[in-house]
Parts: sequence; structure tokens; C-alpha cells
Amino acid sequence: MVEKIYVTYNQVHKLCQNSAERILNDFNPNLMIAIGGGGYVPARILRSFLKKPGNPNIPIQAIGLSLYESLGTDPVEQPGTKVTRTQWLDLSSLEMSNLIGKNVLIVDEVDDTRTTLEYAVRELQKDVEEAQRKLGREGEKTTFSIFVLHNKDKKKKGELPKSAINESMYLAAVTVGDVWICYPWEATDIEEHDRLSREQGGEQ
Amino acid sequence: MVEKIYVTYNQVHKLCQNSAERILNDFNPNLMIAIGGGGYVPARILRSFLKKPGNPNIPIQAIGLSLYESLGTDPVEQPGTKVTRTQWLDLSSLEMSNLIGKNVLIVDEVDDTRTTLEYAVRELQKDVEEAQRKLGREGEKTTFSIFVLHNKDKKKKGELPKSAINESMYLAAVTVGDVWICYPWEATDIEEHDRLSREQGGEQ
Repeated sequence: MVEKIYVTYNQVHKLCQNSAERILNDFNPNLMIAIGGGGYVPARILRSFLKKPGNPNIPIQAIGLSLYESLGTDPVEQPGTKVTRTQWLDLSSLEMSNLIGKNVLIVDEVDDTRTTLEYAVRELQKDVEEAQRKLGREGEKTTFSIFVLHNKDKKKKGELPKSAINESMYLAAVTVGDVWICYPWEATDIEEHDRLSREQGGEQ
Repeated sequence: MVEKIYVTYNQVHKLCQNSAERILNDFNPNLMIAIGGGGYVPARILRSFLKKPGNPNIPIQAIGLSLYESLGTDPVEQPGTKVTRTQWLDLSSLEMSNLIGKNVLIVDEVDDTRTTLEYAVRELQKDVEEAQRKLGREGEKTTFSIFVLHNKDKKKKGELPKSAINESMYLAAVTVGDVWICYPWEATDIEEHDRLSREQGGEQ
């Protein structure tokens, strides 16, 4: 049986808070891209801690990527290997050109097989380069960095394109084994969820 | 001095959970639109409770709307009256046509002056109608509904367009006075935040 880890909201909050200093120092992001739905909560929390006094909030753009293909009959989601786009940035509008020359922080909840993150980085890089060419702005350097709450220490199916990102631009707040992570936003009984987390001795 | 209300993550979780049944019965949404950044957390939590066994998750599309214009020097955000789009749905791709004929649930954290919600409903309705005309799908009925965690009982500057939405399609989990709502994702000390919430006698 796969080990389960119960993560509380306050733990997620503190994981974002404790990572913010390193993100500011090492990545210095101008913009976040939240991979939905898992990246929504950490991105929103992180925004509070990345705000510098006197500066506006760092904007968040959301993209929708799904690795899970529901078959319509199985109540348990099966992990897939194919990434489906449910939302993307608008190439023709300002959304994509807004990325040019920026430090872009991609945010998700978990790095499991890395398939989704590979897709996100590769496709964003490709589209930004295309926008740079179209606009004659090839000289501006766009960087990508990644923040996830949890990285699972396991063999990855996906690989981050080295031309876009290197190890020093990757931050996981926690590295865990190949366990089942129960996030609070999926809990049907949040008090029982918190109790199970306490039992595991996790700091609340 | 304006009264402050401290809302914990678990309270937000339960507000979403307790609203899900009415949302399913009355709105029966096929799709959520989260107004970022405030709508990200409630939309992600709500998705868990709107999922029916055997059905796929209800997709979330994010839009970015900002009512606050930072002046760059004041560390406290001043509410503005102008809505700025930071992300929108792509009219030319599937994103907007995906809305046609659907029951669309718009999700945000708070209904304060209603300016943002008015903008979201009016502009989404306009763009969906345009997409329907272009695609010759005028016969399909698209409905809009709204869910917010908190509605402030005050005179509203914005008005929801009656052609798109009526009162029965609006749900606030809680109605409060014209108070300052402290959401947990803005807390710099989450334990102090929770303590202040307990002191107010709020159910945890």
C-alpha cells in the first residue's frame, strides 16, 4: 500500500512563506505562471510573500494543463501520460509578449513524473521565442524558474529542456519519496485530514 | 476604525464545501471561471466538491482582473474604480467557444463594490454572444452564475447586467457588513491569524 502524507493548509502556507526569500534572491521573478488547478493555491499564497513594499503585486497568469484523462466511469483518476491544454496564454494579445525579457516563475503543487512541467517549460519557451522573433525583440533574455510544493524523488518521465532551465532555477519546498500526497483542497473532511497530519507528527 | 474579520483556511474550505450542494442543484455548472488572484483558492477547493462520481472534474478557466492601482509608493493598496484585465480568455481559440451553451460559474473571494463582478459578467456575456454569432450557434443558451465567499452588505457601485444574470443565480457563502476581511493567504503570521479568528469566536 502506498504511504499517504497529509498536508494541511497552514503547512502549505508556510512552505510558500519559507521559500519566498530564496525565490526572490535566486529567481527574482517579475511574473508567475500558475499551472491549474494545482498551482492556483500555492501561486496565490506565494504572491503575498513575493510582494516588496512599494512595488505592485507580481502578476499571475494561469494556464490549464491536465495529465489525467478521466474515462468517465472510474471514480479514481488515473494518471495519464498525455498533457492536455485546457487554457493557454494568448499569443496574439499582450499575454505572451508580456513574458519577453522577464523572469518567469512557473508554479505547481507537485512534481511527480515531471511530464507536465516539461510540457509547460518547453511550450512556453517556444511561444516566447516566436513572439520575440515576430516583434524583433530577440535580444531580450527571458528566464524560466520553477517552484513546486513537493518533488517526488523518483525516476522522471519528463525532462526539463536544458536550453530553458537548469537545476539552480528549480525549487521544491519539500522533497518526498514516491508517496501519495493528500492536499487539503481535496479533503472531504478537513478536520479528519488535519488530525491525520498531526498523527504523522507533521508540524502544524 | 474598520472592523476586521479573520478567516482561516479551514473556514474557507467549509464555506466552499457547504455551498457546493446549492451550486450543484441551482446552477449545475459545467465550467468555472476563477477571477484571479482572489478566486483561485475558492475555485480550486470548490472543484473538489462539485465533482460527481464517474464524471470528470469541472474545468476551471482563469481570468485576471484587478481593481487596485498601485501607485508604487504606498505600501497599502488603494481600491480603484477602474478594472484592468491582466488575463482574458482567448476569443480565437476554443476557450471562448467552450463557454457556448454552458452553465458558467464565476468565482471570486469577495463582492465588495461589485465593480469587478459587473465587468466580468458583462464582458464575458458580450464575448460569448459574439462567438455564438460568428459560429452560428445563437440558439444555444449560455447561463452565468456567481459564487463568492463573502458579500459585503453595502451600496454597490457595480450592477450585474439583468440580461445575463438574476438574483437567484448569485450565491455568497456569507454576507457580512462593510468590514475588512483578512483572508489567510494574505497572513504574514498564519498562527497569529488563526488565533485572532478564534478570539472572534468564529467556528474553526
